[in-house]
Amino acid sequence: MNLRLVSRQLGIISLLISGTMLCSLPWAFSSIGQAAEDGGSTGATMEGRGFTAILCSISVCLLVGLLLIRWGRQATGQLYRKEAMAIVGLSWFLATLLGALPFWLSGVHRGPAVRISDSNAIPLLYDDRFFGLQPWQPQPAVTRDQGVVLRALLQAGFQGLTEEQLIEQSQLKRSPEILEQLRSTNAMWESAIRKNTNHSSDPEQPRFQIRWIKATFIDALFESQSGFSTTGATVLSDLEDPRLVPRCILFWRSSTHFLGGLGIIVLFVAILGQGSAGKALMRAEMPGPNKEGTQTRMQQTAQIFAAIYGGLTILLTLLLYVEGLPLFDALCHAFGTMATGGFSTYNKSVGHFDSALIDYTIVVFMILAGTNFALLYAVCCFKPKKLFSNVEWRTYMGIILLATLLIVGLGLAYEHFETYSEAFRHGLFQVVAILTTTGFGTRDFDTWSNMGRAVLLLLMFCGGCAGSTGGGMKVIRHILFLKTLKLEVEQAFHPTVVRTLRLGGENIEGPGLRKSILVYFGLILVCFIFSWMAIVTFEPDATWGDTVEHKLIDSASAVASTLNNIGPGLGTVGATQNYGHFSWPSKLLFTWLMMVGRLEIFVILVLFWPRFWRSL
Amino acid sequence: MNLRLVSRQLGIISLLISGTMLCSLPWAFSSIGQAAEDGGSTGATMEGRGFTAILCSISVCLLVGLLLIRWGRQATGQLYRKEAMAIVGLSWFLATLLGALPFWLSGVHRGPAVRISDSNAIPLLYDDRFFGLQPWQPQPAVTRDQGVVLRALLQAGFQGLTEEQLIEQSQLKRSPEILEQLRSTNAMWESAIRKNTNHSSDPEQPRFQIRWIKATFIDALFESQSGFSTTGATVLSDLEDPRLVPRCILFWRSSTHFLGGLGIIVLFVAILGQGSAGKALMRAEMPGPNKEGTQTRMQQTAQIFAAIYGGLTILLTLLLYVEGLPLFDALCHAFGTMATGGFSTYNKSVGHFDSALIDYTIVVFMILAGTNFALLYAVCCFKPKKLFSNVEWRTYMGIILLATLLIVGLGLAYEHFETYSEAFRHGLFQVVAILTTTGFGTRDFDTWSNMGRAVLLLLMFCGGCAGSTGGGMKVIRHILFLKTLKLEVEQAFHPTVVRTLRLGGENIEGPGLRKSILVYFGLILVCFIFSWMAIVTFEPDATWGDTVEHKLIDSASAVASTLNNIGPGLGTVGATQNYGHFSWPSKLLFTWLMMVGRLEIFVILVLFWPRFWRSL
Repeated sequence: MNLRLVSRQLGIISLLISGTMLCSLPWAFSSIGQAAEDGGSTGATMEGRGFTAILCSISVCLLVGLLLIRWGRQATGQLYRKEAMAIVGLSWFLATLLGALPFWLSGVHRGPAVRISDSNAIPLLYDDRFFGLQPWQPQPAVTRDQGVVLRALLQAGFQGLTEEQLIEQSQLKRSPEILEQLRSTNAMWESAIRKNTNHSSDPEQPRFQIRWIKATFIDALFESQSGFSTTGATVLSDLEDPRLVPRCILFWRSSTHFLGGLGIIVLFVAILGQGSAGKALMRAEMPGPNKEGTQTRMQQTAQIFAAIYGGLTILLTLLLYVEGLPLFDALCHAFGTMATGGFSTYNKSVGHFDSALIDYTIVVFMILAGTNFALLYAVCCFKPKKLFSNVEWRTYMGIILLATLLIVGLGLAYEHFETYSEAFRHGLFQVVAILTTTGFGTRDFDTWSNMGRAVLLLLMFCGGCAGSTGGGMKVIRHILFLKTLKLEVEQAFHPTVVRTLRLGGENIEGPGLRKSILVYFGLILVCFIFSWMAIVTFEPDATWGDTVEHKLIDSASAVASTLNNIGPGLGTVGATQNYGHFSWPSKLLFTWLMMVGRLEIFVILVLFWPRFWRSL
Repeated sequence: MNLRLVSRQLGIISLLISGTMLCSLPWAFSSIGQAAEDGGSTGATMEGRGFTAILCSISVCLLVGLLLIRWGRQATGQLYRKEAMAIVGLSWFLATLLGALPFWLSGVHRGPAVRISDSNAIPLLYDDRFFGLQPWQPQPAVTRDQGVVLRALLQAGFQGLTEEQLIEQSQLKRSPEILEQLRSTNAMWESAIRKNTNHSSDPEQPRFQIRWIKATFIDALFESQSGFSTTGATVLSDLEDPRLVPRCILFWRSSTHFLGGLGIIVLFVAILGQGSAGKALMRAEMPGPNKEGTQTRMQQTAQIFAAIYGGLTILLTLLLYVEGLPLFDALCHAFGTMATGGFSTYNKSVGHFDSALIDYTIVVFMILAGTNFALLYAVCCFKPKKLFSNVEWRTYMGIILLATLLIVGLGLAYEHFETYSEAFRHGLFQVVAILTTTGFGTRDFDTWSNMGRAVLLLLMFCGGCAGSTGGGMKVIRHILFLKTLKLEVEQAFHPTVVRTLRLGGENIEGPGLRKSILVYFGLILVCFIFSWMAIVTFEPDATWGDTVEHKLIDSASAVASTLNNIGPGLGTVGATQNYGHFSWPSKLLFTWLMMVGRLEIFVILVLFWPRFWRSL
């Protein structure tokens, strides 16, 4: 392999990342970046730690970039298939590493943790509150209590307080009302209190200590990968207080979506032709003159796609700004939408705005982001017929319609919604958010009926159209998968009659097309099953606290959600939850899954294949 | 298609079934068939209804058989692929229908149902106690109460009583001790009592009525299919009282396993060459002289396989008899073991005997039943090396070893077992029972840890070896599936290097072998996903009672269990539960799934394919 050539390309990507980081710097100044609601109450004129962290990260990116370019300066030769794969795969690795620096260096706060003052002096640390040696030994009861106490505290309204405030508030909890409120939330909380009251020698001693814990480097990696892979899964439980997560870091977090979406469109869709299904189909739909060489045509396609992507992002930002969002939020949500990412700047995601106008605006742009960019280009060239006659797009819209009707019907039957318009709005939003793999939320769909949850779980595997920023398995693969199976069953009783794979009336049968579709499904299945097993095995029961009976289904949804780049899953990783309380091996696995899913398996898998590197 | 030829073959199968039914008749006489523990306490000298039902069924079988043979008498021409498929598929349909007759005509009792005496006079019938118009309308609370009352009753020790005894006992429940016991089992039971106490005008009126309900024709179909497909899932909640399920019917129930296993071995493995994977592999391993024509060779293979099957069944019966089981139980359990079925004659399955010797005997024969019969033949010919060098069999034994170690380790860690020998015995038994798709049980594995349950759920999809009576996907398919994926990933970066599929050093690459393996996985996946969706959608929440949050995982396990012909699943279809409380559409779907899984999808799927019949 021509490593120097690869190195030069990676260097250029490092410089690009450092350039994007520059854009996050202005938001560190409170006059620009302060939260609108906050009114500058934090007092400080700038976020010192966030600013310094980004500056340091930029320096590292520049250094790495220049070193890589320098080493690859004298590269000669051409980009072959293997080099292209190595560039795409390794650039995602590099971006994840570099993108994690701002989170880590600025010390963002991941979530609150509690320590019960136990006179038995069980050595409990804040950081591994949910992680012990389970399941290999019976878990100490106090670990579960800890989670329960914490949940009770947060339910009682302590979410969003800084460390000092949390400590301050926890002293107040000797007031009988709050104590009663906490006690009523859970019987286990009561037992925890009782235990502490009995054992405690000093009655004035606070019953528990509480503080915010900082993101580890693995947390930072997870967050960075979640951004670049446009997943939108997070480990941060409170985004709204700049003292917990600086605004400039929040902006960097959303910027990774923009970069990731751009990377998918340019590097992956245009250059690699997006995996097995895309390859045959994209070639036909790709814009640009046909007669020029492949190289030129690829470059032109990449430019057109990037222009559409950038244009739509700007358009959405303007629209959201006009609809009343501050520029900061408008930009971040536009990044999240067009990349089908899903990072928001609020704890309640898009539900924070509680505005039908904003919901519908974002729905429209999510649908666009999940549409094949080649078709969007055709519409730009005043050929809308190409869009409406496209089989994949029609199926995609059909799935949205059908799933929305199902969710709305179920929601009304189970009385999750009050009015028809509300049901339609939230149902449509959630279906589109999951199908396009964006993962924004306006309602906690985890409280819906089992069937609604099952529909959403299946939608996770659907994905957007090929050639879009949407993740997942892509609609076209499902179409071809079912068509292939149908043809193969017929061949079982008519072995001599050979019928070809057709799409929209056209014969699309190519050498190995059927097999490559089936292989893709097989690989997704294997990744899913093995990762599910790994999470079920190595993640301690304590992560689920008192809902451990949901471990199997929650783990499956967490793996599905990360592998398909959605973000939220069911239960413990549901719409109102996050991934912060998982153990670090699970977080690393999720990080890997996001990358595997985003780059459609092959590109990442081969990096771990010894034979791939053998011809060095 | 040559329908007359098909008809003649089906007629012969009908006659075979009627002949087997004859063998069930003697057990209707209490001097032969009575339960050993019972000591003839039932009083009657013969089971009149069971006897009559079987006689009627035999008549119907004879009539159908003779009519089919008569119509097909003048058939000419040869058996082609399509005819062979139609014979195998339709014979399973026919057998299921005919085999259901004894259950239906004898009116076996499916399970107990309760009716709460509600002065509001909500029209609740015994039979559809769990089936309303859910999920489309909120379920009436009383339906859930019913289930809770019933469960409380059964937990309090009323399982196994006849209808008269149940009614009698339920009058006694005004004694404060039993009432207290029932009350403490569930808060909802208490509310049901309270409701009734308040509303009831006559305080002497019994608070609830209880009776045993009879199996419907769909129940009978389910039970029959479960037998012929060697699944072992049941809708009968009490097997031990001859007044609920006559002994002769119980014997017929186990006989269906024997017939089903024989059918798989003879019709399917030998004649069709067992689907995609088997085809290539079986041909190589098939016993019989090579030089004769295919037809003769097939017949010879079928005879050899049938002889091995019959011989092992007799051997196991003798062993179990020597180990102290009555002939009735020895025969039934031998049928259940060698067919990898899993019907027992006791509510606690093999756990009833509580004997390590019997457990290990059955384990050995389950392993044999899941081994390729061609390899067993090789051993019979003093060529044991063929068995030990076989890649599939080695993998199969490896999986058993690995899974047992996992289950034993987990069981000891979570303290499900007390001693090492107990852990090994129950762990090994459960792993082998699930892997070979037998589905016997000695312990309630549903109370094991989540990880143990996940391991068992995955084992369900594994299955035995090709060319055995074991169901599931077969070990060889998994081997080839993973090998194919590996080769295809390498081809992604080395498109020009072609490497072939090898097994045990031999090149087994055939035209379309890779594709056919992948197609099989795809079809299983599609069947699984769609059936899971159907169960989640159409099965009312009330089926789960107060554990409705387990609906998603329980439904998945129920589908996996029937599709792979195991029997028990997780939760509501777990080791101590049954399928009786499902609604009839779900039961029909399960019945279909058992057939699809048993005949490896294609044979059944094409029967529903209009194009298959078009050339009539």
